[in-house]
Amino acid sequence: MRPSTGNRGETVPTVPPANPAVDAAEVAALLDRGRTLSTPVLRAAVDRLAKPMDTVAAYHFGWIDALGRPADGDGGKAVRPALALLSAEAAGAPPETGIPGAVAVELVHNFSLLHDDLMDGDEQRRHRDTVWKVHGPAQAILVGDALFALAGEVLLELGTVEAGRATRRLTVATRKLIDGQAQDISYEHRERVTVEECLEMEGNKTGALLACSASIGAVLGGADDATADALEAYGHHLGLAFQAVDDLLGIWGDPEATGKQTWSDLRQRKKSLPVVAALAAGGRASERLGELLTADAKSQDLDAFSEEEFAARAALIEEAGGRDWTAQEARRQHAVAIGALDRVDMPPRVRAQLTALADFVVVRKR
Amino acid sequence: MRPSTGNRGETVPTVPPANPAVDAAEVAALLDRGRTLSTPVLRAAVDRLAKPMDTVAAYHFGWIDALGRPADGDGGKAVRPALALLSAEAAGAPPETGIPGAVAVELVHNFSLLHDDLMDGDEQRRHRDTVWKVHGPAQAILVGDALFALAGEVLLELGTVEAGRATRRLTVATRKLIDGQAQDISYEHRERVTVEECLEMEGNKTGALLACSASIGAVLGGADDATADALEAYGHHLGLAFQAVDDLLGIWGDPEATGKQTWSDLRQRKKSLPVVAALAAGGRASERLGELLTADAKSQDLDAFSEEEFAARAALIEEAGGRDWTAQEARRQHAVAIGALDRVDMPPRVRAQLTALADFVVVRKR
Repeated sequence: MRPSTGNRGETVPTVPPANPAVDAAEVAALLDRGRTLSTPVLRAAVDRLAKPMDTVAAYHFGWIDALGRPADGDGGKAVRPALALLSAEAAGAPPETGIPGAVAVELVHNFSLLHDDLMDGDEQRRHRDTVWKVHGPAQAILVGDALFALAGEVLLELGTVEAGRATRRLTVATRKLIDGQAQDISYEHRERVTVEECLEMEGNKTGALLACSASIGAVLGGADDATADALEAYGHHLGLAFQAVDDLLGIWGDPEATGKQTWSDLRQRKKSLPVVAALAAGGRASERLGELLTADAKSQDLDAFSEEEFAARAALIEEAGGRDWTAQEARRQHAVAIGALDRVDMPPRVRAQLTALADFVVVRKR
Repeated sequence: MRPSTGNRGETVPTVPPANPAVDAAEVAALLDRGRTLSTPVLRAAVDRLAKPMDTVAAYHFGWIDALGRPADGDGGKAVRPALALLSAEAAGAPPETGIPGAVAVELVHNFSLLHDDLMDGDEQRRHRDTVWKVHGPAQAILVGDALFALAGEVLLELGTVEAGRATRRLTVATRKLIDGQAQDISYEHRERVTVEECLEMEGNKTGALLACSASIGAVLGGADDATADALEAYGHHLGLAFQAVDDLLGIWGDPEATGKQTWSDLRQRKKSLPVVAALAAGGRASERLGELLTADAKSQDLDAFSEEEFAARAALIEEAGGRDWTAQEARRQHAVAIGALDRVDMPPRVRAQLTALADFVVVRKR
């Protein structure tokens, strides 16, 4: 099938649903439950921070605006807390058992956002100026550090053996996340990155923490290692599907929905999946794309590029098959994730909900 | 006693020894043992980092130079590893029990150095260019994050209940360390800081991690909370003594010994103990200092100041009694630290060694 040359901003699903049975209301309820149960504990943890870090963190989470006034900001999709609570239920524990895990993964996730936005020079996140833009680089570094430390505190103050196991898994995941960011940065300065390298980076940067989110509630609920590992596998592949969709949205996403600039990933020279797949595909469009990106790499400032110049690159990526390949990869990883759930004996309702969340990840527009 | 107007760079002890019995050779042997036993484990941990973070970290620790060639750099005084091993012995365990703790506190300490140097704009550390100067801000952030995560990994992979307790204490200490850095930064932008605020900041920034260093080996060795708390108190007050000496060296230290610029803390508008004590003292010199620093606060760039202008400020701090007060504070904290050891039943040799380390801290020149 020849890929369409659809414009950025169109509202067709990014990845045509392999499973059209996604119940939007059920997913919304799951995400809402995760947010509702974890946010008060998250806010109490953040309130422990010394001034002015508490305020900076509250701004980052969208609880206050840049002037310190209460706000009802967009705190993100909250996929991770929803997974943490479901994972407790997958191990036969009540969802509440997963709350400290949900809070800990959200703290680590937001630690990485604060630092990554600064390192990447990203000025916007969730439709608002990023912390380093508003409060300066030092606060972005410090508050990120503090959220990371808080994550360990929230888990370890439980004082249980399970909390120690959960913290260990979270720490390993965090290191992978950092490895992934290091790879991501180094790839931006390299002319060519293989599809395998890109997948490894994305597995670290996105897969590891989703893997931890999908298992941490079970670990806190006393699950054995085999159960935790199977749930981790589900989360890891879900993360790869999630990131493939993110890579599509990073080029063809609607800025109104994503809260990012148009052609965000192209502006940042990200060697994301559609780009590396297009470059690896061969053929006229692939070669032309390679020539353009090689020339771009020598340019100091892509911000001077017009919308049309980015659009031309996106069209070549699509023509070379990078968009289609990435959509297929999202579906493939989605299927592997669902398959991993077969290794865990869990209540049918929980299995259906974990499946619905996985479906949501591949059809989302933000 | 009217304080002398001694010049920076003179080699008299920073704080005249309250206890002249410090055995330099014994202290050197203790520091050397800490370094010798912990460094191979530290290097193995750092080797786990993804490229190029392993290289950046190796540069930071002084194991390689900026071109990647093996080096035998100055890895710091290594007070923390020495304390961690002694603390294991204080609890009746062999010194080796403290090694993972020694490595973990060194990782956290160096995480904070990497981030603080970037936030503070410090270009030199241990006689070499800082990581952000050589490898850029992103690597300083990333490698700092990675070292922090590694610290938790090194402890938690022990898989014991004691390791969980040790990690919890380390996490709490790390949060205090971050609080202290936040206070330090905010004080630089305030005209007046009280002596109490400065001591609180220094307790967080330096006391917390030394408290953890002095107790983590004991915790890993199975010590009860009362023992761990008493060793923490020793380390906390030792940290305050350490920082008071650091504040003296930050103004009057010999750059050859400290590896920092002349008048380092004055250049950075640090509201360190000698400064806040001098401002709180009242009298002619105190008032004149206040006027100068108020005027300086409006100046964009202290780097344009001549050596004489910094020397004039240092002389006023000394004349107002800030130097003497800080030296006395170091001795007072030293005495409280030694006193805390009375609450722990430990082998006399270990008690003598912990005392010798405390003595060293107040007479050091770097």
